[in-house]
Amino acid sequence: MNDVIYEAIVTTERPDGTPHITPLGIRWREGQVVLMPFRPSSTLAQALATRRAVVSLITDTRIMAGCVTGRRDWPCVPTAGGFRLAAALRHLDLQLARVDDDAQRPALTFDVTADQTHAPFAGLNRAQAALLEGAVLVSRLHLLTPQKIDAEMAYLAIAIAKTASDAEREGWAWLQEAVTAHRQGQDA
Amino acid sequence: MNDVIYEAIVTTERPDGTPHITPLGIRWREGQVVLMPFRPSSTLAQALATRRAVVSLITDTRIMAGCVTGRRDWPCVPTAGGFRLAAALRHLDLQLARVDDDAQRPALTFDVTADQTHAPFAGLNRAQAALLEGAVLVSRLHLLTPQKIDAEMAYLAIAIAKTASDAEREGWAWLQEAVTAHRQGQDA
Repeated sequence: MNDVIYEAIVTTERPDGTPHITPLGIRWREGQVVLMPFRPSSTLAQALATRRAVVSLITDTRIMAGCVTGRRDWPCVPTAGGFRLAAALRHLDLQLARVDDDAQRPALTFDVTADQTHAPFAGLNRAQAALLEGAVLVSRLHLLTPQKIDAEMAYLAIAIAKTASDAEREGWAWLQEAVTAHRQGQDA
Repeated sequence: MNDVIYEAIVTTERPDGTPHITPLGIRWREGQVVLMPFRPSSTLAQALATRRAVVSLITDTRIMAGCVTGRRDWPCVPTAGGFRLAAALRHLDLQLARVDDDAQRPALTFDVTADQTHAPFAGLNRAQAALLEGAVLVSRLHLLTPQKIDAEMAYLAIAIAKTASDAEREGWAWLQEAVTAHRQGQDA
């Protein structure tokens, strides 16, 4: 498998028809898209139940920071195949084609039934990338030492300070709060 | 000034009409684009002489890694206002509108005379972002301690290992060579 991973937001549909949002890496493979959601997860259950999902490709990584800190209520727009983020620069409607089962992370291969661009690419921004790294870090707080967390947050804070807009500064504050809350939980 | 900075490649034209390529941050300000090239630099001299420049917005950060390690010969395509990178997802043709002079970094404000998208956005990739950070690091080797350089390279190598394609692995090798060469130069 080509293991180049692009970070995206995947929406699936809950039994009541509302969108469920999660950050998830996507892999391209010969015109198809592979998702590997963890077992168990709402994304896996819903993708298997509905046999479809939507990928939103975004640069507003505040949404990743929001998702890992309990903020999943991001504006969505209906598509032919489900819901995309309103913030998506591009979205892919996906139809489930094959499941390769696995005890931890089944590989779901999808056909792309729609591929639409909604906004132009503004360029790479170091603060957006730092915020994405911070979101990955916060999603793994339980696995890391306080020293490692402090060192990585301090490093990422440099790019935030130099190149962030208000959106990234807001997302960064959410991550800092999550680190503080995690530490207080440990101390309690 | 809005200080959100997007990392881009700027092309200007040499006196012989061939393209000169440099990585440079761009700032959007009310529909115009501001570039702040260092004084002295070929980009500054050529932008002032021709009163135009082209911004290429890319995700292939191997090009940034190449530019800071002496590899500036990237394929270009003519535009109405100069040359863009063949790898550009989007390019902006720029016409110089105003110069705010400064002893170190004059601010050049440009009107956007063309704005074209050439390829869809594939999504954010952590290895591309790590390679961009590595390129910034290598451009500042002379300012940093060996310990700082080693620590940052080790940190960035994690995302390279996890999510890179061959392009990012090639760019990363260029950066590692540059660090080694810098160190040998210091030891000599």
